[in-house]
Amino acid sequence: MEGTQTITQLTEELHHVLAKERVTINETLLEQHSSDESYHTPHLPDVVVFPENADEVSEIIKLANKYQTPVVPYGYGSSLEANVIPEHGGVVIDFANMNKVLEVREDDFLVKVQPGVTRSQLEKELKKYGLFFTVDPGADATLGGMAATNASGTTSVKYGVMRDNVRDMEVVMSDGSMIHTGSMAAKSSSGYNLNGLFIGSEGTLGCFTELTLKVIGIPEHIMAARAEFENVDDAVGAVIAIMQAGIPIARVELVDEESIKQMNRYSETDYSEVPTLFLELHGNEAGLKHDIAFMEEIVSDMRCRKIEFETETAGRNKLWEARHNAAYAFIHNHPGRKQMVTDVCVPISELAGAVKDARAAVGESGLSGGIVGHVGDGNYHILLMLDPDNPDDIERANQVNERIVGYALERGGTCTGEHGVGTGKQKYQEREHGVALDVMRKIKQALDPEGLMNPGKIIK
Amino acid sequence: MEGTQTITQLTEELHHVLAKERVTINETLLEQHSSDESYHTPHLPDVVVFPENADEVSEIIKLANKYQTPVVPYGYGSSLEANVIPEHGGVVIDFANMNKVLEVREDDFLVKVQPGVTRSQLEKELKKYGLFFTVDPGADATLGGMAATNASGTTSVKYGVMRDNVRDMEVVMSDGSMIHTGSMAAKSSSGYNLNGLFIGSEGTLGCFTELTLKVIGIPEHIMAARAEFENVDDAVGAVIAIMQAGIPIARVELVDEESIKQMNRYSETDYSEVPTLFLELHGNEAGLKHDIAFMEEIVSDMRCRKIEFETETAGRNKLWEARHNAAYAFIHNHPGRKQMVTDVCVPISELAGAVKDARAAVGESGLSGGIVGHVGDGNYHILLMLDPDNPDDIERANQVNERIVGYALERGGTCTGEHGVGTGKQKYQEREHGVALDVMRKIKQALDPEGLMNPGKIIK
Repeated sequence: MEGTQTITQLTEELHHVLAKERVTINETLLEQHSSDESYHTPHLPDVVVFPENADEVSEIIKLANKYQTPVVPYGYGSSLEANVIPEHGGVVIDFANMNKVLEVREDDFLVKVQPGVTRSQLEKELKKYGLFFTVDPGADATLGGMAATNASGTTSVKYGVMRDNVRDMEVVMSDGSMIHTGSMAAKSSSGYNLNGLFIGSEGTLGCFTELTLKVIGIPEHIMAARAEFENVDDAVGAVIAIMQAGIPIARVELVDEESIKQMNRYSETDYSEVPTLFLELHGNEAGLKHDIAFMEEIVSDMRCRKIEFETETAGRNKLWEARHNAAYAFIHNHPGRKQMVTDVCVPISELAGAVKDARAAVGESGLSGGIVGHVGDGNYHILLMLDPDNPDDIERANQVNERIVGYALERGGTCTGEHGVGTGKQKYQEREHGVALDVMRKIKQALDPEGLMNPGKIIK
Repeated sequence: MEGTQTITQLTEELHHVLAKERVTINETLLEQHSSDESYHTPHLPDVVVFPENADEVSEIIKLANKYQTPVVPYGYGSSLEANVIPEHGGVVIDFANMNKVLEVREDDFLVKVQPGVTRSQLEKELKKYGLFFTVDPGADATLGGMAATNASGTTSVKYGVMRDNVRDMEVVMSDGSMIHTGSMAAKSSSGYNLNGLFIGSEGTLGCFTELTLKVIGIPEHIMAARAEFENVDDAVGAVIAIMQAGIPIARVELVDEESIKQMNRYSETDYSEVPTLFLELHGNEAGLKHDIAFMEEIVSDMRCRKIEFETETAGRNKLWEARHNAAYAFIHNHPGRKQMVTDVCVPISELAGAVKDARAAVGESGLSGGIVGHVGDGNYHILLMLDPDNPDDIERANQVNERIVGYALERGGTCTGEHGVGTGKQKYQEREHGVALDVMRKIKQALDPEGLMNPGKIIK
């Protein structure tokens, strides 16, 4: 946004809508809202606001229209592609104060939450009812942010991604009007599917102010395991064989040798430093036993050197905590470095080749990095460490990304399985979507004609 | 379309694009394409064309633009809300000649089909690979038509609806350009979710010319059952209890007393003429045994008078064929009458009340009718028989519909769980979607500015 005069006037008017302490131009706070968890260059917003309800969000957006100021919704700041960075300044709407679990509809397996509720907060609340929300991206993101990027994670191989688990949202549109994108019905063929369209729209079409989520009963039995392999090829081969055998696996994660090393240092685990699959199965006891026996047979055919099961909650939690902290382990163990995380997703038949090529790309780059991934979905990440002030590092990291994205797109895959486009994946949009990108542009133009909703993201 | 002159010119130009026999103004063929399987008033198209590939579809749509003529895609004609009736005349595109299964990607659990492939044709082809496509609406609809209405049916309680099972589509847009709506990746956060938007758009945003569908391995074990109850309340209570116990049921269908009667007459079955649940479970043998024991306990608590299992394929097929033919049974047993099928879907906690109110509504209407439904999703249908030439019958049927839709919408449900809007559910769109209907209108306007794609459907 240009002009101190305008900012002052806008801030003044925002004070008429929100209590004084919930509108801030404090430099520390502006700086806190200038970046996400990635290597992308920060940019300061002009103002940060903390609304408490949808009406306030609507008023904020109406003022943004009046002053032709960008609006950027902000959850927890755990995005990885600059999705929440206010590239063009403007108003950042921080949903920290809209963090209530509004209603648990036990009998309907639904929960209504405000967008600022975090995943761990929701988990704690649902536990009281014997329920759980299946989407687990690792980071303790907000539900609003997770919906905005169509987040997924370790459990999506069985339970689907955010788009599969959000049944309705309240959204404040670019003109301040409010809509609902769905209903509480389990399915509907009524009207256009706005729900699916808004999920993954990264704040570029509107701001989410309430979400109705699908939850499920905590499974009767849960069994986690770690399977160790001599090499990544065998580990990936085992995943493909498990998927093709139709075993209804709930999580299947690849962690390569380097990532296990970083994990052991950070999480104080002592896992063998070899390519490993972290697995989990959910179901009734009898069915699980059958599936586990089948799975053991399959991994043994793929030269698994050791498989260890965790039936106790504590052991299982430790295992998944270590896995979820893999990216942080790299960051923690490389002080002063930033992380670039790639995110391609390929059809499962292309996974072995893709991971092999990715390993070669990392090796050739000379950068420190590891591979982890939700390999049951064909989605894997390279965690690449780089010095953000060294253009050569960034260039080499970009080359890795470029190469693996090209590999994925040539084989019917996607440049981003779960992190979203932000600005980081924008350069691949044309190649991935072709003429469909024009259709996306038309939708953006129709629903945000002034271009004020998180400008510069997804669609340029 | 107005003007014989224009039609003659358009037909002439269509002959430059398609072989002569694939462009027709033959009256019998026009009439065949003037209606669907419902009570809705037929309307003749001006021309019917039978393209063989996407390029031809694109050329047809470009000509429709030149002559400002409506375009209505047509699959099998099994829609129930006038979705395929060319209300404003124009060109009907019949996809009968685009009926090839293009590629089975076994290892990726994907199949590529042309839109004119029927469900039974696909089933036959996939069987060779030990695979199956899960969405089963009963009617032998085309996959293109099923995607257009976001069809679902008996198995959606476990495997989801069309929107969950189509991964990519090729679509010819209103200007003749072609796009892909997705990719072959199991998940993606790249760009806006066009795939979900086009599914359920009923030809109003573009014509589907290719679909990539998710398939799964035929389950290791399948067990079907019929559970008989004294009354509908107990049957519905049992469904709710089964869902809430977290039993991963694959199908759970309610068939009321009157529907069983019609079914026995039509399908030559001799089922007890009482409210009945048709059930199916999929899984491994050990897990199934456990689930069945649990399920028997639950239905017995709900005063189930008898439960009969079908483990053999033949018995199972007979059971599901009878269930799928329930609607046809009513039609067959009421010569000269037409059928109105309601289609609301409610949150599961509201199902018992909704079905009770629906039964009262049918009783008060004085019309012959029964209730069947995919009750695990909270979706049920009233099959109402009426004389299409008797305005009083239509009025009474409309009153039933009006009442049950109101009941559903007041409780967070939807006016159509799986049949789509067409023209039949249009009057409920404003009430169901409110301001969101404006957003839908903007999308329609942005993607079909000339309003030529199946005009008059969903959005007026």
